[in-house]
Amino acid sequence: MTLSANSHSGPPVPTLEWIGDAGGFLRLIDQTLLPVECRHIECRTAECVWEAIRTLRVRGAPAIGVAAAYGVVLGLQDALDLPRPEFDARLNSVTDYLATSRPTAVNLFWALDRLRRVAVEETDLDSRQRHARLLAEAREIEREDREMCAAIGRHGAALLADGMGVLTHCNAGALATAGDGTALAVIFAAAAAGKRLHVYADETRPLLQGARLTCWELQQRQVPVTLICDSMAGQVMRERRVQAVVTGADRIAANGDAANKIGTYSVAVLARAHAIPFYVAAPSSTFDLSLATGAEIPIEERQPAEITHGFGRQTAPDGIGVYNPAFDVTPAEYISALITERGVIRPVNTASIAGALATE
Amino acid sequence: MTLSANSHSGPPVPTLEWIGDAGGFLRLIDQTLLPVECRHIECRTAECVWEAIRTLRVRGAPAIGVAAAYGVVLGLQDALDLPRPEFDARLNSVTDYLATSRPTAVNLFWALDRLRRVAVEETDLDSRQRHARLLAEAREIEREDREMCAAIGRHGAALLADGMGVLTHCNAGALATAGDGTALAVIFAAAAAGKRLHVYADETRPLLQGARLTCWELQQRQVPVTLICDSMAGQVMRERRVQAVVTGADRIAANGDAANKIGTYSVAVLARAHAIPFYVAAPSSTFDLSLATGAEIPIEERQPAEITHGFGRQTAPDGIGVYNPAFDVTPAEYISALITERGVIRPVNTASIAGALATE
Repeated sequence: MTLSANSHSGPPVPTLEWIGDAGGFLRLIDQTLLPVECRHIECRTAECVWEAIRTLRVRGAPAIGVAAAYGVVLGLQDALDLPRPEFDARLNSVTDYLATSRPTAVNLFWALDRLRRVAVEETDLDSRQRHARLLAEAREIEREDREMCAAIGRHGAALLADGMGVLTHCNAGALATAGDGTALAVIFAAAAAGKRLHVYADETRPLLQGARLTCWELQQRQVPVTLICDSMAGQVMRERRVQAVVTGADRIAANGDAANKIGTYSVAVLARAHAIPFYVAAPSSTFDLSLATGAEIPIEERQPAEITHGFGRQTAPDGIGVYNPAFDVTPAEYISALITERGVIRPVNTASIAGALATE
Repeated sequence: MTLSANSHSGPPVPTLEWIGDAGGFLRLIDQTLLPVECRHIECRTAECVWEAIRTLRVRGAPAIGVAAAYGVVLGLQDALDLPRPEFDARLNSVTDYLATSRPTAVNLFWALDRLRRVAVEETDLDSRQRHARLLAEAREIEREDREMCAAIGRHGAALLADGMGVLTHCNAGALATAGDGTALAVIFAAAAAGKRLHVYADETRPLLQGARLTCWELQQRQVPVTLICDSMAGQVMRERRVQAVVTGADRIAANGDAANKIGTYSVAVLARAHAIPFYVAAPSSTFDLSLATGAEIPIEERQPAEITHGFGRQTAPDGIGVYNPAFDVTPAEYISALITERGVIRPVNTASIAGALATE
C-alpha cells in the first residue's frame, strides 16, 4: 500500500500497529523509503520482523522494543497446539533469534526478556492461552510506550509558548516510538493545545534523520517546519528565529549529562551563547544512574563511508581520514530542563534527578 | 589528462596556468570532477573560459579573476591584425561577454576592467603589441595573486605551533586562487616551515567544499587531514583535538565583522566556548570599508534543492520548507586576529583595521 506523503491531515500514520487478534499481523512503515514514499509492510513471521529491525525499516529504541515483542507473537502463531516443553523451546529460539537483529539495542533485549518472563510465569495455561498472554503483554508494552510519549508531551508542552520558533536535532519523534515520540511529542502536544509553533529541523548529518524523518513527521501533522543544514543553527538563532531547542537523548547520566546524536552538543553551546533555553525530552528509562557523569558514556564511532559516500555519490577523496562519532555528550550545565514522563526536572543536577526518579 | 589523486608529492597541481606565449592557452583543473578525478581542461577560446567559470570548473573569487583575464587574451588571439577601432570593439565585446559568466563575482569585473583600462592606455602600440600587453597584465594579476597568498601564509604561519590541530571550514585554498589560497596558505606555510599540523576539515554542507576540495588539497600536499561533518566541530574541540581555527572570508566590514561560508559563525561561537583562537585569513581586497559593520552585509539565499537533493538523491519530503543562507557574519569580537598580506591585525576593531589598511 502506498500513501501519498501529503494526504494525512488528521491522525498520523502509525509507525507500527498490530492488526487483528492472536492470528493477526504487524503492520509497520518501511522507514527506509521515507521521505520519498510512505509504504507499509505487513509482517506475518518473526523473520520479517527480524529483517525489518536489521535493515532499519523500523528504528528508534522504543519502536524496536515493541516490534520485537510482536515478533515473538508472530513466531509462535504456529505453535498453539504444541505441548509446553516444545512451546517453551520455540519461545526461547524465537527470542534468541530476534535478539540478534540489532546487537546493541537495549530496548530490544528488555522487551524480549519481558515476554519470556511472562510466558514462564503462566504455568496453568495451555499453549494457546500462553500465546494470547504474550500478545497481551506486547500490547501492554506498546500501550506503556504511547502513554510515556503522551506524558512527556503533556509536561513539556507547558515550556513552549504560542508563536515560538523551536529548533530540534535528529529524530526523536513518532517514528522512533509507538506513540508521539519524545522531543516531537512536546511539539505535537503544544500544537494540539493551539500553540502556533514553527519548527526548524537540523538535517542531522551524516544520516539525515532530521531531513528524512523529522521533516516528514511534522509535515504529516501539519506543524510548520523549515529544514536547515546543521551548520545553519547558529545563524537561525542569531536571527532570533527560534526561542527554544528541544532534543531527545539516548542515555542520561546521574548528574544530567546527556548523550544524544552527534551535533546536539554544538546546538547546546550555540543555544547558551544566544540565551535560548535548551530542553532534553526522554523517558525515565533513558537515565543510567550507575554513571555518575557523562564522561563514563562510551561514544560509538561509525563507518567513514557514512560521511564520504553519504548521498549515493563519493564526496571526499579516496583514502581520506574520517572521524565519525555517532553521539556526543551535552553537559548538564547546558540543559535548561529535562522533560520526562514523570514531569519536568529543573534545575538539572544529581539531586534533582535522584528526587524525580525516586518518586515511584 | 587524468592524474591519480595520490601521485603528487612535490609541488601541487596548479589550479590554473597559462601555457606558452601570446598564442598559448589556459590550462585549468576541472574542479567539478574533484575529488574523484583530477583532470585538466585546456581553454583555447573565450567561450571555453566563460563555460568553465559558469559551470564552476574554476571557482573562488581570485581564481575567477585570473581565469577571466586570460579569457580576454584568448578572445583576441585572432584579432592581432585588426586596426585599432575593430580591436577595441572586439575587446569590449569579449569583456562584456566574460562578465556575464558569474554575474555577482566582484573579482571578475575587477580583472576585466583592469585589462580594458590597460588596453585603452596603450595608444602607441599596434594590435599585436596591445594583445601582448594584455597577456602581460593577465600574468601580472596572476603574479600579484600568488604573492598575496604567499604573504598571507608567511604572516599567518607564525600563529600556528608545531603539533597543533587546526580546524578549517569550507575551502579557502589553492583551488580558489592562483596561489596557495588564504586560510590554507597559512597551513601550507606552517607545514613548509616544518611544523607538524593535523587539520580537521568541516565537510561544509550544503555544497561540501570542505570534503571535496579542502581534503583533496591537503591530501595532495601531504598535510595530515581528518574529515568531519559540520556538526562534529564542537565535539572535536571538546576532545581538545584542535588548538586553532583558520577560515577565509568573502567580505569584511570596517569593524572586522566577517562574512564567510554559512557555518563559520557557529564554528566561531564554539571556538570561543572552548577558548580556542579563531583566525580569519583574507587579502586586503576583501575589506569593504564602506560598511561600518557586518549588519550591512547582505546574505544571499540559495536554492532549496542544494539541501533537499544535494548529491543525487532526494533526502527530504516533497514540498518541505527550506532556509538556505549561503553566508553568515562572524562578529569581530569572535575573531582573534585577521591575517592579511600586509600582516596580522590584532586586536580586531575599526581602528586597527584602518591603521593596517592605510599603510600603503
